[in-house]
Amino acid sequence: MARWEPGAQARLQSAALELIARQGFERTTAAEIAQAVGLNRRTFFRHFPDKRDVLFSGQSELEAALVAGVEQAPEGESPMGLVGLALARAADLFVNVPRERARANQAIIDAEPALRERQRQKYADLARRLGEALRDRGVSDLAAMLAAESAAIVFTVAFVQWLADGESRSLSLIIAETLAELRALYVPR
Amino acid sequence: MARWEPGAQARLQSAALELIARQGFERTTAAEIAQAVGLNRRTFFRHFPDKRDVLFSGQSELEAALVAGVEQAPEGESPMGLVGLALARAADLFVNVPRERARANQAIIDAEPALRERQRQKYADLARRLGEALRDRGVSDLAAMLAAESAAIVFTVAFVQWLADGESRSLSLIIAETLAELRALYVPR
Repeated sequence: MARWEPGAQARLQSAALELIARQGFERTTAAEIAQAVGLNRRTFFRHFPDKRDVLFSGQSELEAALVAGVEQAPEGESPMGLVGLALARAADLFVNVPRERARANQAIIDAEPALRERQRQKYADLARRLGEALRDRGVSDLAAMLAAESAAIVFTVAFVQWLADGESRSLSLIIAETLAELRALYVPR
Repeated sequence: MARWEPGAQARLQSAALELIARQGFERTTAAEIAQAVGLNRRTFFRHFPDKRDVLFSGQSELEAALVAGVEQAPEGESPMGLVGLALARAADLFVNVPRERARANQAIIDAEPALRERQRQKYADLARRLGEALRDRGVSDLAAMLAAESAAIVFTVAFVQWLADGESRSLSLIIAETLAELRALYVPR
């Protein structure tokens, strides 16, 4: 698998994808992943506190993008307008992510209940953080929670679609279209 | 704890709530719960395939109510109109559920990660089933998925609120008000 990014973290992730796809998640150890790229177990755990985390990189960048989208929105933006801007920022992080790599990563997660649960937890954490950012912009507690959970739905549905066989639209476009579909449930086109 | 319902199933549930609240979920066995009401382990497992299921009764009634709400809606109802009717039917199941009992049940679930995960899974199953019912009424795949996931959000948020300290509104009213709040994200009042 190509090393499209410099740095130990990216190399560890590539090696992990390759090894886990071949051997399964349980049977692949952190030490083995590290060895595959000439590093040791300790270095692995400096980059990823838990073996599962090697499959969930970019969580903090995603959170930062969502929050920045809300914080930097123009004044007077509606709650769902803020959500749209947050999701647009988040989607932008995927512009240079090879879809095949993301597909391989998701296939590993889908095959392992503990990893699926971890992913749900990660999404829940992102929704909670987005809800806080919305409240900081003056959105009421209940509206912020509903808007943030709606964002999580849109992201989840759009991400699955982005990875679907034969899909060629960008994640940004799929998210925008999914948001429009959600809006159309309330405001018929 | 009072036996407010006849029948082995309800008695097993009452005993389970009492024992688990006292001893914790892990340390309470199915045999012990059965013994507390003069039954045996085999009878327990006839009613609940898994020990966890004693805390998740009513799942099939909830599913049936959601589906009936969609199926029996008047023609021409919008997707979110169908969702509203489905949720109204579901909420109606809780009219005679003592709130204190539901609170005790939820406190046990909240304390145990495996039970929280089970509850998320149950909600996901309900959303999937509701999505199918919406598709059967001619709603497109994407709209049905988004509407069903929105219903899951509304139910989850409203159920937590129903159980909150000092809350006196019925689940039906809280669901109606939460749905109105969700709608107001798209159609400002």
